[in-house]
Amino acid sequence: MEKTEDTIATNKQVETPATAPPEVVDVEAQSTSSTAGVQSIVRKWKRVDLMKKGSLILRGSALIFSLLSFIIMACNKHGGGGNWMDFDTYEEYRYLLAIAILSTLYTAAQVSRQLHQLLNGKELLSQPTADFLDFFGDQILAYLLISAASTAIPRTNQFREGVDNIFTDSSAASISMAFFAFLALALCAMISAYKLSHQSYI
Amino acid sequence: MEKTEDTIATNKQVETPATAPPEVVDVEAQSTSSTAGVQSIVRKWKRVDLMKKGSLILRGSALIFSLLSFIIMACNKHGGGGNWMDFDTYEEYRYLLAIAILSTLYTAAQVSRQLHQLLNGKELLSQPTADFLDFFGDQILAYLLISAASTAIPRTNQFREGVDNIFTDSSAASISMAFFAFLALALCAMISAYKLSHQSYI
Repeated sequence: MEKTEDTIATNKQVETPATAPPEVVDVEAQSTSSTAGVQSIVRKWKRVDLMKKGSLILRGSALIFSLLSFIIMACNKHGGGGNWMDFDTYEEYRYLLAIAILSTLYTAAQVSRQLHQLLNGKELLSQPTADFLDFFGDQILAYLLISAASTAIPRTNQFREGVDNIFTDSSAASISMAFFAFLALALCAMISAYKLSHQSYI
Repeated sequence: MEKTEDTIATNKQVETPATAPPEVVDVEAQSTSSTAGVQSIVRKWKRVDLMKKGSLILRGSALIFSLLSFIIMACNKHGGGGNWMDFDTYEEYRYLLAIAILSTLYTAAQVSRQLHQLLNGKELLSQPTADFLDFFGDQILAYLLISAASTAIPRTNQFREGVDNIFTDSSAASISMAFFAFLALALCAMISAYKLSHQSYI
């Protein structure tokens, strides 16, 4: 729009160089309105950028927390051979381990995808597909993590009423890490929901 | 753009009243575009209406399921005096009962608010406040319900390995109802997230 009107203005100037003032006013008014438009676009860009960074940071922390939860639980064997101090004697701890592994894989894949996008500028998936995947992935894993953490809590509580050793402490640490991963993914799911429902990519 | 063309057309009419047909075409084109606008508004209305009905139905079913979960668990006393067949001997079942009560109260309040709005046409809360409350309430209760259901499952499983009686069956029924209430509220939270992020009320 600006270009065509500029050329019109130049043409007019060539024809009648005396009538300059009205054109100057026109151009000023136009530049003010276009500045407002540019500002709103810049604001939108900043918001989109902030959301991208926010979801990357949240997914990164979810990755760290679920990796910690997974490692702590996987190393939680202190007897051997079906001893009561092995995590794999109890189905609750096996469930927590499985969900922690799933969450680690999912967040690692998401973080690597987002980093690839940030560094190369190319997107691996089309935008609507990625947004759907983001939202449902985040939401489902948040539900799974809170479910796994909740399941493991009563068993650990029960143990800690009797004895308080490295096995019960490790279980409690793993549960806490899973809970922090849940918090990060729950916040991330909110950002994904916002992105999914706006669907306005500049 | 249309306006300027109209004024140009009017100018032409003043100059040459004989050239009427093009104006008629112009007016028609204008009315077609306004019809398209009306159609898009009607589509939007229908979508908003569908979402309102959908969330009312989902909250209604969540109310029924959480009420059932609450009643079944509260009646699950078959011994008396700290017997093993009383639900209140176990913290997992107490937790499930508490969350079922909370969910019943929340969904009952929401359903009555929505029904009041539907019948009287007046809104008790301002729209942004209501949307925030809807989204966070639905989301938090969905997390609480999945957490409570997950917590109660291992204990019930453990009982059912040994014995299968009315106590274990009632516990399983209560857990299932809580899980269905979770599903309904999780779907409802998605609708609320959509409404919250669009924020376009006609």
